[in-house]
Amino acid sequence: MANPLIADDLVALLLDGVIDLDRLLALPVFSGHTRATFDMFIATARRLARESLYPPYESMNQELPRFEDGRVSLHPAVRGLYRQVVELGILSASRPEEVGGAMLPMTVTAMASAYLMAANLGVVAIAGLTTGAARLIESFGSPELRERFMTRMYSGEWTGTMALTEPQAGSSLTDVRTTATPHADGSYRIRGTKIFISGGDQDLTENIVHLTLARIDGAPDGIKGVSLFAIPKRREEGGALVSNDVACTSVFKKIGWKALPSVQLAFGEEGDCRGWLVGEPHQGIKHMFQMMNEARLMVGMNAIASASVAYQESLQYAKDRPQGRALSARDPRAPQIPIIEHADVRRMLLRQKAIVAGGLGLLLRAAMLTDLAEHGADERARGEAKLLLDLLIPVAKTFPAEYGFESNTLAIQVHGGYGYTSEFLAEAWWRDQKLNSIHEGTSGIQAMDLLGRKAVASGGEPLRLFASTVAEEAGAAREAGLGDHAGALAAAVGDLLATTTALAMKGMSGDSEGMLRHAADYMDAFSVVAVGRELLAQATAARQGDRWSGALRDGAERTCAYWFHTELPHVAVTFARIRSGETSFADAPIESF
Amino acid sequence: MANPLIADDLVALLLDGVIDLDRLLALPVFSGHTRATFDMFIATARRLARESLYPPYESMNQELPRFEDGRVSLHPAVRGLYRQVVELGILSASRPEEVGGAMLPMTVTAMASAYLMAANLGVVAIAGLTTGAARLIESFGSPELRERFMTRMYSGEWTGTMALTEPQAGSSLTDVRTTATPHADGSYRIRGTKIFISGGDQDLTENIVHLTLARIDGAPDGIKGVSLFAIPKRREEGGALVSNDVACTSVFKKIGWKALPSVQLAFGEEGDCRGWLVGEPHQGIKHMFQMMNEARLMVGMNAIASASVAYQESLQYAKDRPQGRALSARDPRAPQIPIIEHADVRRMLLRQKAIVAGGLGLLLRAAMLTDLAEHGADERARGEAKLLLDLLIPVAKTFPAEYGFESNTLAIQVHGGYGYTSEFLAEAWWRDQKLNSIHEGTSGIQAMDLLGRKAVASGGEPLRLFASTVAEEAGAAREAGLGDHAGALAAAVGDLLATTTALAMKGMSGDSEGMLRHAADYMDAFSVVAVGRELLAQATAARQGDRWSGALRDGAERTCAYWFHTELPHVAVTFARIRSGETSFADAPIESF
Repeated sequence: MANPLIADDLVALLLDGVIDLDRLLALPVFSGHTRATFDMFIATARRLARESLYPPYESMNQELPRFEDGRVSLHPAVRGLYRQVVELGILSASRPEEVGGAMLPMTVTAMASAYLMAANLGVVAIAGLTTGAARLIESFGSPELRERFMTRMYSGEWTGTMALTEPQAGSSLTDVRTTATPHADGSYRIRGTKIFISGGDQDLTENIVHLTLARIDGAPDGIKGVSLFAIPKRREEGGALVSNDVACTSVFKKIGWKALPSVQLAFGEEGDCRGWLVGEPHQGIKHMFQMMNEARLMVGMNAIASASVAYQESLQYAKDRPQGRALSARDPRAPQIPIIEHADVRRMLLRQKAIVAGGLGLLLRAAMLTDLAEHGADERARGEAKLLLDLLIPVAKTFPAEYGFESNTLAIQVHGGYGYTSEFLAEAWWRDQKLNSIHEGTSGIQAMDLLGRKAVASGGEPLRLFASTVAEEAGAAREAGLGDHAGALAAAVGDLLATTTALAMKGMSGDSEGMLRHAADYMDAFSVVAVGRELLAQATAARQGDRWSGALRDGAERTCAYWFHTELPHVAVTFARIRSGETSFADAPIESF
Repeated sequence: MANPLIADDLVALLLDGVIDLDRLLALPVFSGHTRATFDMFIATARRLARESLYPPYESMNQELPRFEDGRVSLHPAVRGLYRQVVELGILSASRPEEVGGAMLPMTVTAMASAYLMAANLGVVAIAGLTTGAARLIESFGSPELRERFMTRMYSGEWTGTMALTEPQAGSSLTDVRTTATPHADGSYRIRGTKIFISGGDQDLTENIVHLTLARIDGAPDGIKGVSLFAIPKRREEGGALVSNDVACTSVFKKIGWKALPSVQLAFGEEGDCRGWLVGEPHQGIKHMFQMMNEARLMVGMNAIASASVAYQESLQYAKDRPQGRALSARDPRAPQIPIIEHADVRRMLLRQKAIVAGGLGLLLRAAMLTDLAEHGADERARGEAKLLLDLLIPVAKTFPAEYGFESNTLAIQVHGGYGYTSEFLAEAWWRDQKLNSIHEGTSGIQAMDLLGRKAVASGGEPLRLFASTVAEEAGAAREAGLGDHAGALAAAVGDLLATTTALAMKGMSGDSEGMLRHAADYMDAFSVVAVGRELLAQATAARQGDRWSGALRDGAERTCAYWFHTELPHVAVTFARIRSGETSFADAPIESF
């Protein structure tokens, strides 16, 4: 059976049963749509993913793009596939019609993207990066920049990148050193080096626009002196495109995402690289961070997509592969049984299923909150959605990256010795997945964001909102006969609130190191609670109405039960450790390592 | 600073402080040795590892051996390195002088091997496989087979392999189909296909001896009809080596252990493959399993070696790499700090350190028990050591494989974006590590072995022995001022015993599925307890006497405290789940996945 990439019935349960896509139709901004147009967009993406993008993935995951004479050549299949992705309209699908978009909800485009990512991450990422870069120009660029760059990016004529990281700075954007010198022609002369630029060179399109962080001469030190620029690979002069002195100097030897080159770029080696300021001077980080939620949501979706396609593949393998016999079988001549009959294989499969279903639920919820935060019915609805979204985003990025990686590792293990070979794709997705705990802010940075900023923002308002929403859902779960789980979830949320309060007080007293010491533990426990909430919502929805099959309902209930029995009971232990302020690693002298 | 592969002070603490290597000198079998000869062997291996084996690892971890015209060609550096490994005498170091060995304790040779494995796993594995294969002939082969094969294997003239797995059988050795037809010349004609044969072909030596499982014509069905054969790649005829009809038909595209080919072998495609029975007919599995403890111990050591070298590298990177500033720093012009100053990086480092130190402690204890089980002072000492060894072996294989993989993943994460590239070696060791949860019995099989056989063997005697040894050590820990940890460990061991009793009763009542359902959870909790015991023993030893530096003592105490605060408190939750008999995955209909 062909790999479905993501289970259709899970998607239906989430869109109809849990988050209720229909309610978006009531918002004026989406009034031009019907549920049928939503479904058709997702169905078209799904078909493209299954029929076109997935089959060539295997041939594209082994070798890196070629790099010769300063030019990157992608795998030959990328060009045609990328064209098909562009034709789907995904680049501007969630953007307004005035910029050529279809004004679809993020919830719809994120779901469509998930299928594409599950099929062929490297190809689809080029589109995602282009959209992200164009979004920055759309939001902050002058009409002229929008015309010159954004339009061609949304149309797929040119691609875009995000050029943030520098060799000496890594995640510390405060330490960006690329310089921008104002020029009489209104542009800036750019000099500097950027690393890990995904899609930073390619042979698909005649131009690439790099959204780049740099310092204008004389800018303040630190984060408040960093500005955002659009820097094309080639600039227009006299109606033609000429070199803009942006050199691709190397291609990183990555372990996954092989179809997508990650390169080092040198701007202005010959003193002739021109960049155009996007937005206000010195506001580059702020502008960039306004797009951060969507970027992190997309990384979370990458992670769930890689986990899902691997789960589906290992599930099929476990059904097909005969090996061994039941514990009670005594006759060695009896035929072997499919390995899905072995308890430990089932454990590995249900764990993957729980991670995929919980993670996808979390991401679709975040996508829905993105739509409501921007387009909600009134200011209060928008405000509440924004608070919840900001709170959940680091979790929706980190849970899929960390637990998704565990899920991909289990998919290898299900294959036994074959899993350790590239004869099966499990190892390719596992290599792809590993990036997601690193890019767009490492898991450590997400944990600091969650605990140090989001959970304690506005006097704890987002967390109280989270708790009251969960309490409402717990009521519905009780009515559906899932009272035990509802009670356990309520207790865990209470523990989360108490722990957060204790840590916030520590921070208020000036001990920010003490507050944040166990941020990673906090993230982990928060994730387990947030995913428990999703799985309970899914089990509850599956019991409501008569639309859902017995298998779907049983699967949702078991996945929920698995999580509540296996993961949730550990949360109290973790919260106790966090509150204890345990210091074994934090204050160790370096010689003690 | 050059990578030390394994920390010298940890090794000293383990050999002198925890397991006390000196007491082996009191045993008659090792009376020809002094402590100086033990130390010299380890020191020589360490120097070879650091100076010769480690530097070329980087160039050897990217590409697989070439396979052309049915012949495998290894990386050109392997030949010289393998020769050096042979000259160290490691192949027969633990074997008696009558077979050319040095009769060193396993404890010494295992420690020496750990350095070699940490330096260059693929090269060293060829030696390990050869020793294992020669051991089988030494133990069960006729004098003629010992002369013909074993002698040349121990001398390094030929290599050896273990040929167990077949495509249709995988881990299910019951289903071996390779056939052996008796011949008038006393040999057997062999036909069949074996897969995943590590070192199954190479261009280092003129011959390879495959220790192979096959069925003699007319043998009983199932596991009791499988015999063990020595099948050389080339056989001697008229004083020359001629082909023995063993064909290498493909090389698996593995994701790690790149220097070591894993191949498919076809025996007897032309009807002329001769094998010689090793040991008794139909006793092949029994013979093979008598070597299983050592094979699993070596896999555990591989795993700790891969975790340790990566830990050391990421530790050095964290000291060298400046990035970001302290939470309290407000001045963006202040220099960046090394990332080891960040709490989350320290967490990732101390976690790696705990896994490496706990795992190495577990493995050296298992090695010591191997020595005592074979050479202990009296029958009772040998018997007790054997019981404890059998109990601990699945744990000493699985904890390093599973937690070691987590440790290797953390080593990548410490490097940020660079960790995702092959510019640093973190990803190479991570790929190497993944095999260890699969070969020599998957983690699932180890868990069934631990719970279904070892923990309930002899009416629970091994577990009671384990508990009483731990209780003794807890007394020493209390005296050293580590009473809190000692108490927590005693409680966890009590929980382990109670849980095991409950499961054994379930099994006795005929519900073996119910007993073994949570075998993986049981393995995990057992591992955490067993490693807690090791880390407490290390912290205790580091407080005794005045030999140890303050840094070593502080490091051992923090590592212990980390584990007791972070991992051990979860054990009670896991044991409760195991006892509950939770069935979410176990009895799910296949459609529910």
